[in-house]
Amino acid sequence: MVSQIHQKMPEDQNGKQNQHEIQLQNALGKIKNKILVMSGKGGVGKSSVAANLSVLLADKGYKVGLMDVDVHGPSIAKIMGIKGLLEIDPEKQMAKPAEYGKNLKIVSMQSFMREADQAVIWRGPAKSGMIQQFITTVNWGELDFLIMDAPPGTGDEPLTIIQTVKDVKAVVVTTPQDVALADVRKSINFCKTVDMNILGLIENMGPFKCPHCDGEIAVFKKGGGKQTAMDMNIRFLGSLPYDFEVVHSGDSGNPVITKDKTNHYTRALEAAANEILANI
Amino acid sequence: MVSQIHQKMPEDQNGKQNQHEIQLQNALGKIKNKILVMSGKGGVGKSSVAANLSVLLADKGYKVGLMDVDVHGPSIAKIMGIKGLLEIDPEKQMAKPAEYGKNLKIVSMQSFMREADQAVIWRGPAKSGMIQQFITTVNWGELDFLIMDAPPGTGDEPLTIIQTVKDVKAVVVTTPQDVALADVRKSINFCKTVDMNILGLIENMGPFKCPHCDGEIAVFKKGGGKQTAMDMNIRFLGSLPYDFEVVHSGDSGNPVITKDKTNHYTRALEAAANEILANI
Repeated sequence: MVSQIHQKMPEDQNGKQNQHEIQLQNALGKIKNKILVMSGKGGVGKSSVAANLSVLLADKGYKVGLMDVDVHGPSIAKIMGIKGLLEIDPEKQMAKPAEYGKNLKIVSMQSFMREADQAVIWRGPAKSGMIQQFITTVNWGELDFLIMDAPPGTGDEPLTIIQTVKDVKAVVVTTPQDVALADVRKSINFCKTVDMNILGLIENMGPFKCPHCDGEIAVFKKGGGKQTAMDMNIRFLGSLPYDFEVVHSGDSGNPVITKDKTNHYTRALEAAANEILANI
Repeated sequence: MVSQIHQKMPEDQNGKQNQHEIQLQNALGKIKNKILVMSGKGGVGKSSVAANLSVLLADKGYKVGLMDVDVHGPSIAKIMGIKGLLEIDPEKQMAKPAEYGKNLKIVSMQSFMREADQAVIWRGPAKSGMIQQFITTVNWGELDFLIMDAPPGTGDEPLTIIQTVKDVKAVVVTTPQDVALADVRKSINFCKTVDMNILGLIENMGPFKCPHCDGEIAVFKKGGGKQTAMDMNIRFLGSLPYDFEVVHSGDSGNPVITKDKTNHYTRALEAAANEILANI
């Protein structure tokens, strides 16, 4: 299921803990800013936000890494149009991340799977091991930003990230409907409980215009993200409109931000990115 | 974080394994059909489908249990309008599930939390323990159906279900866009790998009519669910249209199926339920 790099994963047992810790700190020391994109509920467009935000920062000239830590539902490879397995550099015994343009490096669980549709049937400890391995055995090099796309919820994956990457900061994504907001409040409380700095909240899939008549359609209601940010006392990074182009471009492996610099989604995400840059 | 029932959880250590196994088999022996509603990707409306399907079967006169095993993002309590903590019957030392009408019993992680917005920061083993406890320490009684709403993916929760509830069958939910279909193929392969019978695939959030001009809007594209069911050789249970009423009624704690027997979503779900009943 996983390429040979998996078998080389350093084991914490057998006195190798120190060596593993040194590898981790070495890798993390070369990365200036670490951002965990998280959500309470799945399907709020977290991976789209992580992918488009990464492209946007890379376009601005920053060196960016995009790490998909959603083991069971890795969407980043699809959205970014990455196919095939990761290459391994036999000399350094490190995996070479996929590249998108000259500033963006990408690693996804999908790039470790020989069969695209295979399920990764792993319990928590295996997932935690993989996340640490993604940091230590992938040749990220010097980065301005490492954007990590976590699965929804407050389980093993985000917990491993915060315990491994001490200075990670969170960007929380939600949609405006109450069911999503209830879960995002749990995510925000998770961050507060584990002392993770929150850069802000992005509302995704906000109202859009009907392609036929231009009437406003609020598929998942509206305004809930801003209100929740105010109530929970965190920064509101803006509302990204629902956009057909995000769905289609994500499915085609060409993020919308690359294709269209003028649409509403792109402009709203640019504003959110500027807020993040000003406050990181 | 969790009420007193948590401390009473039978431990598999200390020779109590047999007693625990007997409790499990006792509880499961009273339940005729067990259905796990699962998805590869979050946010495809899995909880809405599980909730509305449960109400629909209860309305038909079946005794139904609805168990929310999504520990980090439990949506069932919100969708079903359940508030407050579960009552504990001190004599039987069992939790009394919430009731919705006379045929439907409901248990959600949310009903074990004193503060609604608290995050459950648990790793896999704790989640597995909770799922087994939901079966053994909740007084379900005799049921025709136990519908279990799993978090997205193929991790600890669905794995625990299939290892605990040997005769469970799966209903898989997806939306039509490629990114969701890629993940749902993983879920279907998970079921095949662990030998879980699949009742079929439901496509959710299909095309709908613009409320202003009646033009068709395919928010998440269309047709992908049916095609995937054919490709993967499983039964297609139908396409449920995206419906504003599902969002609003879910947010208000009154499932759409209770409110409106005539709308497209309800009629499409009824057809899917009849397919399930004919093939279970």
